[in-house]
Amino acid sequence: MSRVAIVGVGQTRYSRESGRSEWQLAVEAISNALTDCGIDPGDVDGLVRYSYDNVDEAMIVRSFGLKLRYYSQTGFGGLGAPATLAHAYAAVASGQARVVVCYRSLNGRSTTRYGRAERSLGTGGGDLIATGDRAPSGAFAGPYGMLSPGQVMAMWARRYQWEAGLTEDELAAAMGRIAVDQRAYARANPDAVMGGRPLDQAGYLAGRVIATPLRIFDLALETDGAAALVVTDAAVGPRPAVWIRSAIQGLIPYAESIATYGELRNGPTYRSLGSRLLQDADVKPADLVSASIYDATSVSVLLGLEGYGIYPVNGAARAVIEHGIGPESPLPVNTSGGHLSEAYVHGMNLVIEAVRQVRGESMNQIPRSGPVLVASGPSGLVLAP
Amino acid sequence: MSRVAIVGVGQTRYSRESGRSEWQLAVEAISNALTDCGIDPGDVDGLVRYSYDNVDEAMIVRSFGLKLRYYSQTGFGGLGAPATLAHAYAAVASGQARVVVCYRSLNGRSTTRYGRAERSLGTGGGDLIATGDRAPSGAFAGPYGMLSPGQVMAMWARRYQWEAGLTEDELAAAMGRIAVDQRAYARANPDAVMGGRPLDQAGYLAGRVIATPLRIFDLALETDGAAALVVTDAAVGPRPAVWIRSAIQGLIPYAESIATYGELRNGPTYRSLGSRLLQDADVKPADLVSASIYDATSVSVLLGLEGYGIYPVNGAARAVIEHGIGPESPLPVNTSGGHLSEAYVHGMNLVIEAVRQVRGESMNQIPRSGPVLVASGPSGLVLAP
Repeated sequence: MSRVAIVGVGQTRYSRESGRSEWQLAVEAISNALTDCGIDPGDVDGLVRYSYDNVDEAMIVRSFGLKLRYYSQTGFGGLGAPATLAHAYAAVASGQARVVVCYRSLNGRSTTRYGRAERSLGTGGGDLIATGDRAPSGAFAGPYGMLSPGQVMAMWARRYQWEAGLTEDELAAAMGRIAVDQRAYARANPDAVMGGRPLDQAGYLAGRVIATPLRIFDLALETDGAAALVVTDAAVGPRPAVWIRSAIQGLIPYAESIATYGELRNGPTYRSLGSRLLQDADVKPADLVSASIYDATSVSVLLGLEGYGIYPVNGAARAVIEHGIGPESPLPVNTSGGHLSEAYVHGMNLVIEAVRQVRGESMNQIPRSGPVLVASGPSGLVLAP
Repeated sequence: MSRVAIVGVGQTRYSRESGRSEWQLAVEAISNALTDCGIDPGDVDGLVRYSYDNVDEAMIVRSFGLKLRYYSQTGFGGLGAPATLAHAYAAVASGQARVVVCYRSLNGRSTTRYGRAERSLGTGGGDLIATGDRAPSGAFAGPYGMLSPGQVMAMWARRYQWEAGLTEDELAAAMGRIAVDQRAYARANPDAVMGGRPLDQAGYLAGRVIATPLRIFDLALETDGAAALVVTDAAVGPRPAVWIRSAIQGLIPYAESIATYGELRNGPTYRSLGSRLLQDADVKPADLVSASIYDATSVSVLLGLEGYGIYPVNGAARAVIEHGIGPESPLPVNTSGGHLSEAYVHGMNLVIEAVRQVRGESMNQIPRSGPVLVASGPSGLVLAP
């Protein structure tokens, strides 16, 4: 692939009550990202946002006086995080735009709480589900009360348990290890909303059950905040450039939200997409230095580790029980604390942490240099110095 | 620009009552487009849709069993028509995808009637307006009853009349000429919903006033139907390839929906974007053989003719009164009948007609070969053989 780089990142404070509009948060995050790379807003000619974002392109154009020549939206919620960068890559590599800003802004706690299915209730149901086909999801799952991501992903966890032949205790041990290791990362990250609260396995097990077998610590936080990234065709600004080595934005058929008759995210379609992503970057799983794996719930991390070939199918749980995902593990994951312990910016904060790892600027810096994976279901990026 | 081509087009029958779901219509249009170029659905790896479309990517993936690696959405209604092709261009030129399908499907008469502001009422107001900033549009215009595109564009027409120093009769003569000439094109087009109904200037003037100074013949039809196009990196299939020579997707600040304090679509930002589009294609306005100019209302055509430099600012009305936009005019426009007389597929049928002109397959074929313009406000394409 040609040379397209992430040169700037920016974010707001992450909180439970921003006291500001999502528009204000988006503008602050974008301003910070542009400052990070020293690019003038007048040079921005592309924008990529989530279709779910309430801050549309015209609002950003107005706030900064942008002159756009490319803008796009990525659908399906959290799948959109790496995909925004994939679109920016396409725009820059094709010459459609020169400087593209990707952003996500949400008052996910003080305004619309996804965990309470407030978004899906507000829009007719079902389209919150990342890989789902809107109509059947709403029609089949909604009437049975499966409205929030946690309710849906509890079914993923149960099915994974069954497929992998895990006991209830083993599943809890694996998911708990993810929650505990991500919390440990958060302890060193001053931006992390949960940084002040230690968590161990006993604390995890004592957590309130939200949707069996998921406990409260298995679920993404609900937070307010925004995050933004700047993409262009050269290394500019004071920070090390982070090159987009490969990008893929998959979407598979029959990925029903209840996931009891579709393909789990460690299935053959996912593995084929993940394998292609790494091949396109000329990277093997063992080459990866760290990874950001979308953690709407802890089980998503287990599935992602298998989907992208880090561990064999049905092998992630036992590997995680043994090695964890901490700094000494074979592949450190979600080193900012992730959605479980840093903040929930719908995947965008995970992309920023991957950038920081490549730059060598993470609060939990992995001391090796090399490619970093960003994975969200069937969409992903490989970033490298 | 590198070699990216539109190789297939497809559509459904255009009607006032399709009797089928938008999903069914989309699948039929896409099937027809793939048949048109002989590409197997298994080779499609990209999709681009309007954010307004009720048929999301997952529904198309399911119907065809697609394996995607790129998909995007274009916002702001009709601006998305050329922009879908711009996204497909970016995906293919950058190597993100190889075969991209762009589509639009809507039961615009039998289900949701935009002319009655049913969409904007259903979604909170204001976001129907193509170039508007959602929040202010809804906040300032909605309470005064400006809910439908026709109500908004009536203000554009009045302001244009004032800027260009036109009398009431001159404005009506210019807008009427557009309606009459597009109807004449529709007479030769068996797909056109209004093909069976002749219209002359007297008939136009006798039309019911919808929103002063717009009469019923100034407004886009409300129809059911779908349209799709296939984009790839080579000339494939039995039809002549139509190369995308340039693409631009603009969005300007302060383009308020009521347009009384923003920039009309013949203003300096639009002209600058239009000029850049043509320069990128190495084309002068006089080189253009025909044009598809987004005609939500007839006045949009006048503004587009000026925005893209075909006529001088405030000069289009008098030029159109004198020469029209028919086959003998300096630049034939909307040669299928357009939204006013063929059907309203939200700009996508206009792109298909531009493809047909480049191929030499239009029912109103302009007998010269050369570049064809597709323009929708600040977004556009130049297509060429």
